[in-house]
Amino acid sequence: MEGLSPSVPVSSEAIISLTTDFGYDDAYVAAMKGAILEINPGATIVDISHSIGPQNVRQGAFVFSTAYSYFPQDTIHVVIVDPGVGGPRRAIIVETDNAIFVAPDNGVLSYVLQTRSKKRASGLSLARLAPQSQAFEITNPKFWRQPVSPTFHGRDIFAPVAAHISLGKPLTELGRAIASVNVFPLPQPQADARGVLVGHILHIDHFGNLVTDFTSQDLPSGQFQIELAGHKISSLSQFYGQGQGLLALIGSTGRVEIALTGGSAARLLASQVGDEVRLIRQRARRSRD
Amino acid sequence: MEGLSPSVPVSSEAIISLTTDFGYDDAYVAAMKGAILEINPGATIVDISHSIGPQNVRQGAFVFSTAYSYFPQDTIHVVIVDPGVGGPRRAIIVETDNAIFVAPDNGVLSYVLQTRSKKRASGLSLARLAPQSQAFEITNPKFWRQPVSPTFHGRDIFAPVAAHISLGKPLTELGRAIASVNVFPLPQPQADARGVLVGHILHIDHFGNLVTDFTSQDLPSGQFQIELAGHKISSLSQFYGQGQGLLALIGSTGRVEIALTGGSAARLLASQVGDEVRLIRQRARRSRD
Amino acid sequence: MEGLSPSVPVSSEAIISLTTDFGYDDAYVAAMKGAILEINPGATIVDISHSIGPQNVRQGAFVFSTAYSYFPQDTIHVVIVDPGVGGPRRAIIVETDNAIFVAPDNGVLSYVLQTRSKKRASGLSLARLAPQSQAFEITNPKFWRQPVSPTFHGRDIFAPVAAHISLGKPLTELGRAIASVNVFPLPQPQADARGVLVGHILHIDHFGNLVTDFTSQDLPSGQFQIELAGHKISSLSQFYGQGQGLLALIGSTGRVEIALTGGSAARLLASQVGDEVRLIRQRARRSRD
Repeated sequence: MEGLSPSVPVSSEAIISLTTDFGYDDAYVAAMKGAILEINPGATIVDISHSIGPQNVRQGAFVFSTAYSYFPQDTIHVVIVDPGVGGPRRAIIVETDNAIFVAPDNGVLSYVLQTRSKKRASGLSLARLAPQSQAFEITNPKFWRQPVSPTFHGRDIFAPVAAHISLGKPLTELGRAIASVNVFPLPQPQADARGVLVGHILHIDHFGNLVTDFTSQDLPSGQFQIELAGHKISSLSQFYGQGQGLLALIGSTGRVEIALTGGSAARLLASQVGDEVRLIRQRARRSRD
Repeated sequence: MEGLSPSVPVSSEAIISLTTDFGYDDAYVAAMKGAILEINPGATIVDISHSIGPQNVRQGAFVFSTAYSYFPQDTIHVVIVDPGVGGPRRAIIVETDNAIFVAPDNGVLSYVLQTRSKKRASGLSLARLAPQSQAFEITNPKFWRQPVSPTFHGRDIFAPVAAHISLGKPLTELGRAIASVNVFPLPQPQADARGVLVGHILHIDHFGNLVTDFTSQDLPSGQFQIELAGHKISSLSQFYGQGQGLLALIGSTGRVEIALTGGSAARLLASQVGDEVRLIRQRARRSRD
Repeated sequence: MEGLSPSVPVSSEAIISLTTDFGYDDAYVAAMKGAILEINPGATIVDISHSIGPQNVRQGAFVFSTAYSYFPQDTIHVVIVDPGVGGPRRAIIVETDNAIFVAPDNGVLSYVLQTRSKKRASGLSLARLAPQSQAFEITNPKFWRQPVSPTFHGRDIFAPVAAHISLGKPLTELGRAIASVNVFPLPQPQADARGVLVGHILHIDHFGNLVTDFTSQDLPSGQFQIELAGHKISSLSQFYGQGQGLLALIGSTGRVEIALTGGSAARLLASQVGDEVRLIRQRARRSRD
């Protein structure tokens, strides 16, 4: 009954993106590419990043989220940060209105499937999908490379499955429909007792720019002050080359970034992912709290 | 007499893989890609790895061997770890029943062209090819980029030759047939006087997993103990997340790996490539030797 | 009046190269690739290097120059080392007789647009284009991704513009013609009072080879001596494996390189980019100066 299956457009220009924590020293990524091309030699394979910290699911989820939305609709995104490979964690396919994701069900799609919510939470939880989305647990070994290594599902399950999807294979043939997938709560600033918004460094990029979990929506319309590592920044710059020293701006993914003109803010401040960043609204300060 | 030449299927989806020790800091790899695309703009070029240690032919041979077999048949694999570039070493093409290899004749294809043998050996030796394979020394400058730099045959000889092969050029036009190529003996465990099988760490991957030269065939059907760096492991795990601490498992390339759940075995043990790993069959231990 | 516009051949095999200082830790390069493929899913995208030092325009200009000329004619080269992103610096397209370049107007195309000149100079200056070339300031927001982030023109301006060029969009629609672009003077050796030619290390490659700003044209036909870091080299080798210890040769880009057989000259000499290298013609030495 393929006619009733979720339809995936067949494209001779199918694009498959790869995000992993495999690094560049081994040939793991290449083995995945070979496995894809073996099935669909016409696929266009694009690397998103392979520099995710080993087994760092949250970093992988974040870095992937900063790029995937710029790809054409119907791109198939394979995201493999998979400390539980070979164990009981599920392998999943999620189709949303703008892409198809193939990944372990360990939260690595959290940024893709959620927006920030008001409630404070931690740990993994099952999240229902948006109405226009659907998810499948990958269960049909017919479309896997055999024998499957228990240590490398990227090569033997995820890559072949992505390749079959790129050839138009209905998702219903690859697995069974599921109603929810695992996500972790997205990091977001929390107001403390004094009304100060306390956020954190979410990511430090190659330039040493500090990407925080503040977005432009967190900034008050009036005066404010950002504090981190003993430094204070009280205005918003437009671009990196503006002014001297530390500055804050809205980065290319919509988040508040702390940067150092011509240098590395991370090195200057000896910053690490998770470090606290405080946003103080000026009115709160005037009231002498 | 092209009709009598070894035939190479012409494909508009020709795939060329690249493995080098050129790293990612320079534009050497890109110059090779440009040289390929100049001749065959339709080639699909896939990086296997460019992180091979400078001039480390054995590492290049190993890393390449872990990925090439996952590529489609007729993929053209260019493998350039070439300390002898510009000197008397030969440049070769080897066609086997599942791929075509273009490389310096310095042993970098050793894993591709051999299986493990019983005899102990070291150094390079000429190995006859399997009956279904054929080899050519690259000798025809008509298909090279001119002038040829004596320091960069990757760009000026190997890349153009691979591109011409991808367009269907008969191998006999590119060079002259040869009966044997250089290989080094594949590392393999050796039994010591007490019957202990002594192997070595062959490769340390990005996760700090220690890939040994033991394969599943070396493991006894009964009890055994693996010893390295003062640690003992006496059972075989199925996947990385299984159990706590150090574990041994059959990795994705069929070799015994030592891993640390959620961490780096290499860092824990301060391991280096070449370190000894010992496999003791339990029966030998019971007899109190 | 498209008929009067500079014509760019439409090709289903359009090649776009990318050179940036974005590194491999983030997904910035991938976002650019997504933005290109969104507009031209058939484009072949090739990485030249993303390891340029952060904001190091001169290094980017050099590394890019060592590879671009090996690509097919009409390749579109995007070169983004852009400390001034978001500020007043212009974004430009330059079409020469062998390629199209898309870049910030900050000198990153200096090696592409100039040959060495006799006059000593420093800093950026406006250089008129060769007669067969033309340049455009990118001014038409119709072909940009909206909204444009002031911190990431690579993704929102340069990548989409390159993609539109690859589809045959006339350059005149993308911006306005300009007569000159910014370049910095190419580094070149200078003769000192004694006639010694004083050059510098221009680049240190992945192997630790020291690429100098001497070319083969600087070498006298007779005897000479190269001095650096207290070492002297008095002959020219042909390839890396020749001889023992430090050697000098003409590297693959036509520049004099200092190398160490089987090792890293940079590590041996603790060299850095900018270090002085002296070329002494033997006749000068004989005259006892």
